[in-house]
Amino acid sequence: MTDFFNGIEPVRFAPDATGLAYRHYDPDETVAGKRLEDQLRFAVAYWHSFAWPGGDPFGGQTFQRPWFADDMDAARRKADVAFEMFGILGVPYFCFHDADIRPEGSSFAESKRNFEEIIAVFEAKMETARTRLLWGTANLFSHRRFMSGAATNPDPEIFAWSAATIKNCMDATHRLNGENYVLWGGREGYETLLNTDLAREMDQMGRMLSMVVDYKHKIGFKGQILVEPKPQEPSKHQYDYDVATVYGFLQRYGLENEVKLNLEQGHAILAGHTFEHEIALASALGLLGSIDMNRNDYQSGWDTDQFPTNVPEVTLAYYEILKAGGFTTGGTNFDAKLRRQSLSPEDLIAAHVGAIDVCARGLKAAAKMLDDDLLEAARRDRYAGWDSADAQAMLNSDLASIAAQVEASGRDPQPQSGRQEILENIVNRYV
Amino acid sequence: MTDFFNGIEPVRFAPDATGLAYRHYDPDETVAGKRLEDQLRFAVAYWHSFAWPGGDPFGGQTFQRPWFADDMDAARRKADVAFEMFGILGVPYFCFHDADIRPEGSSFAESKRNFEEIIAVFEAKMETARTRLLWGTANLFSHRRFMSGAATNPDPEIFAWSAATIKNCMDATHRLNGENYVLWGGREGYETLLNTDLAREMDQMGRMLSMVVDYKHKIGFKGQILVEPKPQEPSKHQYDYDVATVYGFLQRYGLENEVKLNLEQGHAILAGHTFEHEIALASALGLLGSIDMNRNDYQSGWDTDQFPTNVPEVTLAYYEILKAGGFTTGGTNFDAKLRRQSLSPEDLIAAHVGAIDVCARGLKAAAKMLDDDLLEAARRDRYAGWDSADAQAMLNSDLASIAAQVEASGRDPQPQSGRQEILENIVNRYV
Amino acid sequence: MTDFFNGIEPVRFAPDATGLAYRHYDPDETVAGKRLEDQLRFAVAYWHSFAWPGGDPFGGQTFQRPWFADDMDAARRKADVAFEMFGILGVPYFCFHDADIRPEGSSFAESKRNFEEIIAVFEAKMETARTRLLWGTANLFSHRRFMSGAATNPDPEIFAWSAATIKNCMDATHRLNGENYVLWGGREGYETLLNTDLAREMDQMGRMLSMVVDYKHKIGFKGQILVEPKPQEPSKHQYDYDVATVYGFLQRYGLENEVKLNLEQGHAILAGHTFEHEIALASALGLLGSIDMNRNDYQSGWDTDQFPTNVPEVTLAYYEILKAGGFTTGGTNFDAKLRRQSLSPEDLIAAHVGAIDVCARGLKAAAKMLDDDLLEAARRDRYAGWDSADAQAMLNSDLASIAAQVEASGRDPQPQSGRQEILENIVNRYV
Amino acid sequence: MTDFFNGIEPVRFAPDATGLAYRHYDPDETVAGKRLEDQLRFAVAYWHSFAWPGGDPFGGQTFQRPWFADDMDAARRKADVAFEMFGILGVPYFCFHDADIRPEGSSFAESKRNFEEIIAVFEAKMETARTRLLWGTANLFSHRRFMSGAATNPDPEIFAWSAATIKNCMDATHRLNGENYVLWGGREGYETLLNTDLAREMDQMGRMLSMVVDYKHKIGFKGQILVEPKPQEPSKHQYDYDVATVYGFLQRYGLENEVKLNLEQGHAILAGHTFEHEIALASALGLLGSIDMNRNDYQSGWDTDQFPTNVPEVTLAYYEILKAGGFTTGGTNFDAKLRRQSLSPEDLIAAHVGAIDVCARGLKAAAKMLDDDLLEAARRDRYAGWDSADAQAMLNSDLASIAAQVEASGRDPQPQSGRQEILENIVNRYV
Repeated sequence: MTDFFNGIEPVRFAPDATGLAYRHYDPDETVAGKRLEDQLRFAVAYWHSFAWPGGDPFGGQTFQRPWFADDMDAARRKADVAFEMFGILGVPYFCFHDADIRPEGSSFAESKRNFEEIIAVFEAKMETARTRLLWGTANLFSHRRFMSGAATNPDPEIFAWSAATIKNCMDATHRLNGENYVLWGGREGYETLLNTDLAREMDQMGRMLSMVVDYKHKIGFKGQILVEPKPQEPSKHQYDYDVATVYGFLQRYGLENEVKLNLEQGHAILAGHTFEHEIALASALGLLGSIDMNRNDYQSGWDTDQFPTNVPEVTLAYYEILKAGGFTTGGTNFDAKLRRQSLSPEDLIAAHVGAIDVCARGLKAAAKMLDDDLLEAARRDRYAGWDSADAQAMLNSDLASIAAQVEASGRDPQPQSGRQEILENIVNRYV
Repeated sequence: MTDFFNGIEPVRFAPDATGLAYRHYDPDETVAGKRLEDQLRFAVAYWHSFAWPGGDPFGGQTFQRPWFADDMDAARRKADVAFEMFGILGVPYFCFHDADIRPEGSSFAESKRNFEEIIAVFEAKMETARTRLLWGTANLFSHRRFMSGAATNPDPEIFAWSAATIKNCMDATHRLNGENYVLWGGREGYETLLNTDLAREMDQMGRMLSMVVDYKHKIGFKGQILVEPKPQEPSKHQYDYDVATVYGFLQRYGLENEVKLNLEQGHAILAGHTFEHEIALASALGLLGSIDMNRNDYQSGWDTDQFPTNVPEVTLAYYEILKAGGFTTGGTNFDAKLRRQSLSPEDLIAAHVGAIDVCARGLKAAAKMLDDDLLEAARRDRYAGWDSADAQAMLNSDLASIAAQVEASGRDPQPQSGRQEILENIVNRYV
Repeated sequence: MTDFFNGIEPVRFAPDATGLAYRHYDPDETVAGKRLEDQLRFAVAYWHSFAWPGGDPFGGQTFQRPWFADDMDAARRKADVAFEMFGILGVPYFCFHDADIRPEGSSFAESKRNFEEIIAVFEAKMETARTRLLWGTANLFSHRRFMSGAATNPDPEIFAWSAATIKNCMDATHRLNGENYVLWGGREGYETLLNTDLAREMDQMGRMLSMVVDYKHKIGFKGQILVEPKPQEPSKHQYDYDVATVYGFLQRYGLENEVKLNLEQGHAILAGHTFEHEIALASALGLLGSIDMNRNDYQSGWDTDQFPTNVPEVTLAYYEILKAGGFTTGGTNFDAKLRRQSLSPEDLIAAHVGAIDVCARGLKAAAKMLDDDLLEAARRDRYAGWDSADAQAMLNSDLASIAAQVEASGRDPQPQSGRQEILENIVNRYV
Repeated sequence: MTDFFNGIEPVRFAPDATGLAYRHYDPDETVAGKRLEDQLRFAVAYWHSFAWPGGDPFGGQTFQRPWFADDMDAARRKADVAFEMFGILGVPYFCFHDADIRPEGSSFAESKRNFEEIIAVFEAKMETARTRLLWGTANLFSHRRFMSGAATNPDPEIFAWSAATIKNCMDATHRLNGENYVLWGGREGYETLLNTDLAREMDQMGRMLSMVVDYKHKIGFKGQILVEPKPQEPSKHQYDYDVATVYGFLQRYGLENEVKLNLEQGHAILAGHTFEHEIALASALGLLGSIDMNRNDYQSGWDTDQFPTNVPEVTLAYYEILKAGGFTTGGTNFDAKLRRQSLSPEDLIAAHVGAIDVCARGLKAAAKMLDDDLLEAARRDRYAGWDSADAQAMLNSDLASIAAQVEASGRDPQPQSGRQEILENIVNRYV
């Protein structure tokens, strides 16, 4: 045991506690037919909680963690603290990038050795810890070699480096029985169109994703491949802009049945969407995989990756997930970081505890709302006119015959109320 | 002749004029191998210039046009003024919605009769005027019956009304030898997800677009079907969000070889893109059709539809169009409206003259820039590493063999400068 | 009685009701030392609820109200329906513009006569109804004469017309014992700097506001003069941008002790602020007057004026109001309009009922949060270092002596956690 | 001489050059009555060009400069390269923060010694170099001690540290004959209102600024004190939001005659304004000091600090500056950084050369536009109605007498065209 969380006890469900406790999250409560833990499938993000030093574009490191050093001892210490935190929180999952967990080596081979050594540490810990791996991923955006892209780099050697890195990360994810493998292309985009060949770069990216799918099948990895959309930042434009964009991309390269999506609240907002929109659209397109739960400051134009706090918003997100049947391989990963002024170990624990309770409240409200069927009944009602045989026949006919009917009938169809405020009032009964 | 433009003479190319004249637009100048007129293919938008009364959400009509009345006489007077303006400007094209040109009737049939009567007026005028039809379209968003969508309406009768309206507009476009037919779905989206069935509505929209394509073939219309993307406004969310979104939609319904796009500067900006991005992406995806040239105030979050003024921006747009081979059926439609304080007939003419000159400057700069090849040479250079057989072989291999090579080679590829500022300086030599 | 709300009974507090009822708003509940009705001081906005036809920039009227006509009979019918709705809701206040309540006349004098006749109707109704006037105001933005500004118009005759209109509206507000008089300058700004003399226009606006203050004193109006900030829309830029801007303006013209602010959630968001920021800042500057409660869609860049739905957000707004001592002359005006698809009378009632409940929940949570003092104790603690005599002496010394001390002491002050997530968790216990 | 810019010759004015040259900037050309160099007063920003390593929130250092080390030797080498670049560019000014030029020491005193040693290096170089100091400033935002503010910190010891640091930076600026001293409060704001006492923090900030003004007078510094507005980033909200906000702040603390503003294009845009708006407003309020010239990507919601490229935009900025009489102590500081992919020394030079040419084009166009008087004549015309004695008398009368006149006159004033498009066309003749 490290002494980092000195004195912080495992967090328990205790609705009336005054101290650190889950007030709403009882993992064993049955909600929508499953244990709450199995519905929400919470994961801690290694990068934000253990690797991020607290910097921003105008200031450097604020956190002073005992494991902040660029060597293997520090990496092992970091792993110790991470698993202690997983235990304190009782979360069933975690997620990581290669670069979060190991120091960069002086060569590809050394980086790989460092990485595999920590994977072995994880493997050992996971024999006793109950925390499993929701997903692994490769960091192909922080090192300067990726500054102009990974798969989309103008230099084929960097494409190769990226491919090799992904292979290692997929191997590690497979070895740890990860349930998904994620690709986020923060540098797969451009800073300026003036130096960019869009069509070529998209083809490179399509090719890389195809190789990933092939490799998955080759090694027998049963997890789901997930792409994580984000419209911009760090790049001016990223090819995986949003759900709709990735859908078009997957179809272009024949991958729409092999790849699903990992959706993030903050990325939805940067793309001009609500989170529930992105979830509903992914569900409609058969692409819903997993979520990165956080929130984005509505007044800030960058990715603030804050812990979720707004129960009504979170409720709408889980409502769409439950409507889609809930998670299968996916889960709720907190891709959220402390504010850089939140220096203490207690802040790190409390932020997760608060977020877990917010999600639990959201999911429970959503489940009740779905069960009561008020919203869905109203929705069915609104489209009921389409259920008639005539309407379906019309839908399957053609412009000329429809026009003939319309002109002949002389009918002037009248609009019906959309009842938005009444539906919003219904939601407010549950949150 | 009406007396609306009383005293305003046809606008001529006169670089050194002090009054109203084209200082940069000489339709007969050869640029990039064609007459400038044939490159730019300017169109006037009937709706903004002749039908819009100058209202905004906080104020009513400011324009007092002699043809503002809801009867057929006024509609004929409006047509007279419109064709006079086409003549004054010497533009080769115009565009219209059904609702711009005719009064709404008390029934579908009466609206249709009104519409066809004005189409006949147009037909007669076009026998002598040199102005042709760039595209026609149906207004399926202004009347209250469309408040919850046209193709995506929860009421099948409104779907039918919409289909019938499109048929009539396609017929009229065909009759006038229009070169394209456009669909813009301002109400094909939602105000709240709470009352919306996304999947069903997209299917309805896909079905309608398929019927449009079928009808085009049935009647032998040779023009191009174009969808116009816009992310939101008037709806909170519109299904035709941007180029990438429509691409995914077209693939979903098997229409990617039948339909292209009509792209608008202001819509690109509302979707978080530059205009040149949307053009470049449409070109890369084989979807570039036509453009709606305007500008959007960068500080306003709604569609300001202003006349274009910024030559460097316009240059980058035409650069992408020229790289794509220039327009075929498409053109430059000014989907731009006077500011509501610009009350005089002279404002209406001057706004178009200024915009035409801005576009002419942009296209000429773009043509020279493309011809000099400085940007393209730099771009080819940047990706030159991919030309080798080894690079191509690597691209077509697999993760495992690439990883083996990377690890074995021990090479540490170094990033190269992206040279953005130098490329921006090159552009500035041309604008 | 009209039959518009046919069958809708007065709304009562009934926490467990299944139909239309207040589930959270019991006007007689004591919260923070006052009746809830006296804390919240709800007002209905005449314009949105009775005068707005449902149009948007891409579509016309959707509502078909029996009082939509441009004559005095219709104006009287509208007043009947309005007071019926005030009664159904049991709200203590309403607000209006001159243009909401009377038809425009063919001359200034006729408009005034129309206006005064309806004021007399109101006066008569208010003898029996319990609804009072929270504030009156003049509509100096809808008619085309105001297109280039009211006080800031380049034409002195329009300044004069505006001044005269304000006088009449102040007289009417005084006559009806209004508790405030509001000025919102939707056209007091510019579309383009190219035709604008900023300094001159601000001086004109300062002069107008001074006249308003003088006139208030002259007629013995005891209500508060309020300016309503908004950054843009309909104008590209409005001079009353936000709280901070109006504060500078008031100081410039010596009016900071005479004028306070009417703050709107949606306007705060358009200006890049949270609502609680604007309230807290107004309070810090001594300018907090009243609020326009609504919400703005976070993905839309225009003023959506929706009914408030998010209890956690509303709670933070009322928390700042309670910290400032609560309302005096101000109140909670619903500057919120139905979505244009919400056609039915029931929608109009339900929207207000839902919003009233949201505000009641917010205020009650805020009161409890303030009473429990957890947030305020943490805040006092954070700044406790400033309480020492040394710290205060330092604050009142000078750079040179502070520098000497810092250098001599050799101390390296260490940052303390800002505890943001822990504070956010505290808030979540209340909402 | 270092060998960093090996082979790059001093940049000369050579309009027809094909290589690196000023095509538009001839420092000796007379424009608007002064040498162009004396109008534009260009400055290089030490931080972006010499201290920034190329990191962003998702990636680390990309630049590998020979002077990137945390010791005094490196600091001296950096100074050598900086002055070489000033010489190559021939710019008359530079600007710096303390933290740009010296390594942080292990104590306040050591940091001060490091700082003063480099100031001595600068002083020696400036004896022979022609580059002077436009302004100095203190970096009170990068080190973790400032994470919760400098002047506004909840810890008085950090206020003290900040005050002492400012004193040293003012001393150095004075010693180097700097023409201004700038304060930018990147951390003077908040991350969350929940832990913030707005009123107290503003008072602390007002007190610090008063001390700065007092100290300036005490030491006889003749330069101008400038505050630099920015709305947010790094903080969620910054107290110096924009021009209008700082104006209110200065009045509150009685500093409006002592302090002016340093305005930045990118900050204007983040605040929802055009750059020309901020300049025009500062001018109208008597606060125009100096500018930070750059550009902000219109699709990115953070401070991109790019080199300016758009001549029409830059022209409008300089037009307002020339209308205000041009710079006195202020100048054009390039607060602009290379894109992080622009790795080469040539990129650093070319970026400045391109930006200098863009500004020269803009200023020359603005001067001609002002000289030709077309815009100003139109502006005078628009407000001409206010020149009459009657209009002025009316402006100085009162609501009641104006109302009496309006009602009696029976006049219905008609709006006049704002002619925006015609004015925009005029601008386009110059750019």
